[in-house]
Amino acid sequence: MSVVNTTIEHVAGFRVAGVHAGFKKDGRLDFALVVSDQPCVTAGVFTTNRMQAAPVILDQERLAQNASAIRAVAVNTGCANACTGEEGLSRARQTTQWVGETLGCAPDAVLVLSTGVIGTQLNMNAMRQGIDLAAQSLGHEWFAAAKSIMTTDTRPKLGSVSVTLSNGTRCEIAGISKGAGMIAPNMATLLGVVITDAGLSAEVASRALQAASGKTFNRIVVDGDMSTNDTVLLLANGASGATISSAADEAAFTEALTALCRKLAQDIVRDGEGVTKFITLHITGAPDEAAAHQIANTIATSPLVKTAFFGGDANWGRIVAAAGRAGVPIPPEHTRLWITAGEVEGTTADSLLLFEKGMPTAFSEQTSTAIFRNASVSIHLDCGMGAGEAIVWTCDLSYDYVKINGDYRS
Amino acid sequence: MSVVNTTIEHVAGFRVAGVHAGFKKDGRLDFALVVSDQPCVTAGVFTTNRMQAAPVILDQERLAQNASAIRAVAVNTGCANACTGEEGLSRARQTTQWVGETLGCAPDAVLVLSTGVIGTQLNMNAMRQGIDLAAQSLGHEWFAAAKSIMTTDTRPKLGSVSVTLSNGTRCEIAGISKGAGMIAPNMATLLGVVITDAGLSAEVASRALQAASGKTFNRIVVDGDMSTNDTVLLLANGASGATISSAADEAAFTEALTALCRKLAQDIVRDGEGVTKFITLHITGAPDEAAAHQIANTIATSPLVKTAFFGGDANWGRIVAAAGRAGVPIPPEHTRLWITAGEVEGTTADSLLLFEKGMPTAFSEQTSTAIFRNASVSIHLDCGMGAGEAIVWTCDLSYDYVKINGDYRS
Repeated sequence: MSVVNTTIEHVAGFRVAGVHAGFKKDGRLDFALVVSDQPCVTAGVFTTNRMQAAPVILDQERLAQNASAIRAVAVNTGCANACTGEEGLSRARQTTQWVGETLGCAPDAVLVLSTGVIGTQLNMNAMRQGIDLAAQSLGHEWFAAAKSIMTTDTRPKLGSVSVTLSNGTRCEIAGISKGAGMIAPNMATLLGVVITDAGLSAEVASRALQAASGKTFNRIVVDGDMSTNDTVLLLANGASGATISSAADEAAFTEALTALCRKLAQDIVRDGEGVTKFITLHITGAPDEAAAHQIANTIATSPLVKTAFFGGDANWGRIVAAAGRAGVPIPPEHTRLWITAGEVEGTTADSLLLFEKGMPTAFSEQTSTAIFRNASVSIHLDCGMGAGEAIVWTCDLSYDYVKINGDYRS
Repeated sequence: MSVVNTTIEHVAGFRVAGVHAGFKKDGRLDFALVVSDQPCVTAGVFTTNRMQAAPVILDQERLAQNASAIRAVAVNTGCANACTGEEGLSRARQTTQWVGETLGCAPDAVLVLSTGVIGTQLNMNAMRQGIDLAAQSLGHEWFAAAKSIMTTDTRPKLGSVSVTLSNGTRCEIAGISKGAGMIAPNMATLLGVVITDAGLSAEVASRALQAASGKTFNRIVVDGDMSTNDTVLLLANGASGATISSAADEAAFTEALTALCRKLAQDIVRDGEGVTKFITLHITGAPDEAAAHQIANTIATSPLVKTAFFGGDANWGRIVAAAGRAGVPIPPEHTRLWITAGEVEGTTADSLLLFEKGMPTAFSEQTSTAIFRNASVSIHLDCGMGAGEAIVWTCDLSYDYVKINGDYRS
């Protein structure tokens, strides 16, 4: 798998800025602008929540009409522009108008992302200020850009990866993300902006982003809630001269993109609200991948499983029982469950078998507890049925999760 | 709706006992026996979890073969007899053998229920002791019986209701339940035993129990986890002489049974782990009942919604967003959300409209917070689509839930 850097050095033809626009009161960075000098082929994946925020509605409209000529993405925090009706949509359009005028491009070459309070209208004074300040300071400060899209994230999330194509040309892929932040009166929003200086067709961009996000952003669970604003964008401007034109190059690009998205997605789990444990759930032997994913999601969203993780308790019964109610006809007598310290997929020599043949094994409580005391624990459940498998990354449910989400307004 | 008594006086032909058998170490009541002098027509609803416990497997087998001649139900706590393989099934069979010998009936006239630790075998010394002690003390101590099936329930759950049939004869229905108790290393198990001295056909018993539990036991959410042992039984011995033979009488019986099951189910929510708030969720205007139930369940299992309830926060955004991800194509512009203090269905003069036309209303924060500070809050969400509706009762997610489920072994 491609090596992902934890910084972003340079992606040809892209500039960014992260500024304090005034959406938040305390002077923190709250607005980011990502700009490409050349039009970008762009793909997006969006929340399937029916209560779609205005930026989600607008971006989908833009990508349907203009997916090969996107020039900029404006991201604000402090306001989700969700549940804001026609007025909210109108303010989102106004934002793209201003960005277009400032950068000298058409409004429909601009996309918008918002995260923050639901049900309040965008502060357009802050927006005007943010656009002006950001346009003046466009450069390569990716760390600041990543920081400016944070909500209650405790650290910025960014990364980059290089791809060498079969003809020897090289391109960069880089991205920023934000996640498990929680803002009155709403919820964690997953946002991701990934850029590349590779040349891609709209079809390849869409296929690569679907494949990568399906295995990464779509495979993380903090609390199982899905936001009104979740969005991941991929912008490709071709400025490196490296063009994806063969199936082999597309595969190499998709692999690298997946590695990057995996890093950005895992960072969201690690920085989830109140998280003390990082859990890798690997389901194998399911009838198909969808069934494996369903089992993994059921385990990952079970409050009983998540509180046991928090307690450092190797509670195999809760994991097996959650798998049993996932809606997949798994046979108890052929189901096996292992745990391993650290982040591993499948089973290693250090794995401990806890359950097989419908019963717990005679495992040592001391060994299982020692494994569960680690900050990272991996669970492997084999259903003994078919070839379907899936990996989901998740976390525990702690006092702090309840505190962050229950107490913040009272 | 029928008036449900919070005690059980007398149901003709039934006797019970609740004793300390030795499944638990601290001398608490841990075994109950419910006996009918005459064979009972019996119906059951069982967990759909694939990891079915031995008693669930055995009872289903018995009801398939012998649903019109059940004489007794033996209930133990302290051990779920789940994930125990062939040995577990064999011990469940042995239990029914002993109960049959003791009472003078066939083993296949005996049903068993278990709740407690998963993955350990039944203590058959305790079982033998429990059966002997209970058989010696059979009587009408329903309170003791209800108490003896508790796990970490903080109070016994029981109730009764009378039905007068069209020919003037009268029958009693009574029941005990247990719920949100949590036992190392596992989970809340919902158990319910409902008895009646009415005469029912197997068909009517099954239809009435399905209808009643579908609207009650199947409409409660504490944490959304489903146990390996969940079971509700209905035993009808006909000893009152009142026989259900017309559609009108069946309707009256089903109505009364539903009222009783509703009380027993709501008691489980009120006594849920760490519960500080009782929430009535009423969904209307969905395409159909299944869709309404799905929306209600998605809201009821959302950790963000549940922690907001705990925080006393009228967080309409989380409720609306959870509804939006329920997989039902609800139109934001036609969706309306009200809150009301107390336990109400639908909307009253005291209800506060928080959301309509895709946006929050100009409601007073002070009023909404005052409503959310109550121990009981009702939520009414109208989706503006069709005639489908559903009610689900649920609760908040508190520090104590995390404590009970995360800390108990560490």
